[in-house]
Amino acid sequence: MATIHDVAKRANVSVATVSRYLNESGYVGGKSRKAIEKAIRELNYVPNNVARTLSTKQSNLIGLIIPDIKNPFFPELARAVEDTAYKYGYTVILCNSDENAKKEQHYLQALTLKYVAGVILTSTHEGYKRHVDIPIVALDRVIDEEIPAVMTNNVLGAELATNHLIQFGATELLCLKGPKQLISSEERLKGFLKAIEGKNIKTHIIESPYEFEQAKKITIEYLQKHPSIDGIFASSDVSAIGVLNACNKLGIKVPEELQIVGFDGIEISEFFTPSLTTIAQNIYELGETATELLIQQIEGKLLNNQNICIDPELIVRETTRKEQKG
Amino acid sequence: MATIHDVAKRANVSVATVSRYLNESGYVGGKSRKAIEKAIRELNYVPNNVARTLSTKQSNLIGLIIPDIKNPFFPELARAVEDTAYKYGYTVILCNSDENAKKEQHYLQALTLKYVAGVILTSTHEGYKRHVDIPIVALDRVIDEEIPAVMTNNVLGAELATNHLIQFGATELLCLKGPKQLISSEERLKGFLKAIEGKNIKTHIIESPYEFEQAKKITIEYLQKHPSIDGIFASSDVSAIGVLNACNKLGIKVPEELQIVGFDGIEISEFFTPSLTTIAQNIYELGETATELLIQQIEGKLLNNQNICIDPELIVRETTRKEQKG
Repeated sequence: MATIHDVAKRANVSVATVSRYLNESGYVGGKSRKAIEKAIRELNYVPNNVARTLSTKQSNLIGLIIPDIKNPFFPELARAVEDTAYKYGYTVILCNSDENAKKEQHYLQALTLKYVAGVILTSTHEGYKRHVDIPIVALDRVIDEEIPAVMTNNVLGAELATNHLIQFGATELLCLKGPKQLISSEERLKGFLKAIEGKNIKTHIIESPYEFEQAKKITIEYLQKHPSIDGIFASSDVSAIGVLNACNKLGIKVPEELQIVGFDGIEISEFFTPSLTTIAQNIYELGETATELLIQQIEGKLLNNQNICIDPELIVRETTRKEQKG
Repeated sequence: MATIHDVAKRANVSVATVSRYLNESGYVGGKSRKAIEKAIRELNYVPNNVARTLSTKQSNLIGLIIPDIKNPFFPELARAVEDTAYKYGYTVILCNSDENAKKEQHYLQALTLKYVAGVILTSTHEGYKRHVDIPIVALDRVIDEEIPAVMTNNVLGAELATNHLIQFGATELLCLKGPKQLISSEERLKGFLKAIEGKNIKTHIIESPYEFEQAKKITIEYLQKHPSIDGIFASSDVSAIGVLNACNKLGIKVPEELQIVGFDGIEISEFFTPSLTTIAQNIYELGETATELLIQQIEGKLLNNQNICIDPELIVRETTRKEQKG
């Protein structure tokens, strides 16, 4: 098997130059670079990091499985994961599962066969059983008690949102909850119910996917039947933007006639008119923490499985009123 | 070196079962799955796809280098790339370059060392010289005449946008162009200039990054100095949303007093009030075509380098007027 010395000799450069090239740790001129690449090809030289992958069955690749990068929550999350991975010398493989258990399973197995060092998984599948024997961190959603998870305190966030609506005068509330297979969505419903408990508030609960057009359609239909609703807690910013569109369509004034609070704190929520009052998750910190937890596992530094819960924050903007009730 | 037969024997299953497991081509029960994984570990078995990576220096990994997944144009693009890659049996590695030449170069070299089969690159760096000897396709932006590129017909799009503003009565136009290092941004400026040529239109040209907050700030300052502007062509939807926010802030009625046309056709542009008239790139087709072109190169089926230019489309919504001038 060819060594780094053979490559240096054939390329007519020093071993230090080849090492700089392989480790990307300093300047290598264009001519030397070409000569080194030619020598590597001709000698079939396998650099250490690939050799290491084979002998230890471990690479510096991290798999990131999310439902859909097009949902505006996930680009911000993916960015945090990649930034953190980059800092620790890892590279990220992106996989979109479409909330489809079969596609998710396919990716998990495909990633294992590529000897990724670990996987960050945002799965919808509660009670998930591990089929693969590599480090996994669950992100945004708990999937199994054996798998460490990083998520937002969803119950607290929903309570903050609902209390804010009530405090500023809403008396008939709609909770536009998310899909029931998502634990985070059920926790947000729990927080909503906790906030209204014992208060004289009329409530409605309906479900919508986290998708602009669907949320708009569902809200229009429901508000037409129940025009006295004066506050909506939407379980995601994407749904809340759908709600805002529904109100525009129906000629309902926001926040004068109806107040809206979203959940997530995606960047774009600030740029609507009126701008969206929302429960901001610390999306970057979620991604960063999950990646650090995974790397700790990969490097054998994590002793116990643990769940990390990050508190969200109420950001008051223009879809809720400025003056308190009474 | 262990073979698939050794694995089957030790796991006490058939070779066909191991093969199904490795190729993910059919059902393998939980018990067999565990036995196969145990045998693979104990025998240090290297499946064919990893062995192939070593012997041919080629994997089924594709690198995707983009400026920033948080810019809403790129999630839609990344999704198309991943869907297409998945269809052809490839997996995508996501890298954010932050428009930084050094980070881009780092990723290109890191990907080459991981023996990716090819790279899809959205680079800002014109006159790009290849440092690495693997298939590359340029996406959204031409980088070198030797590298095949897939992009939108930006000149045509900007012409459509500008003509639409003029046709519906705008007489003093601002072109809020994008960063000058982007060829696509310069082409959109070219289309704008082509559309106003020979017409009695007063024009202004200023630059803004493709970023909500910056575009808003720059537009507010400029409109305060030039209140007679009655039409803005923004070089991206993200800038156009910043312009829309600037108009709200200044109390300028859109489209009655000022019309806006964006560029890109990102999904969210439809959900603003007023909804954004824009030049829609076929983002999904761009990503799909680039991936197919790359895979053709990888598989040796592409004979000549070629550029593919996809026509964009004007989508008339609510930031432009309904009635023609005169």
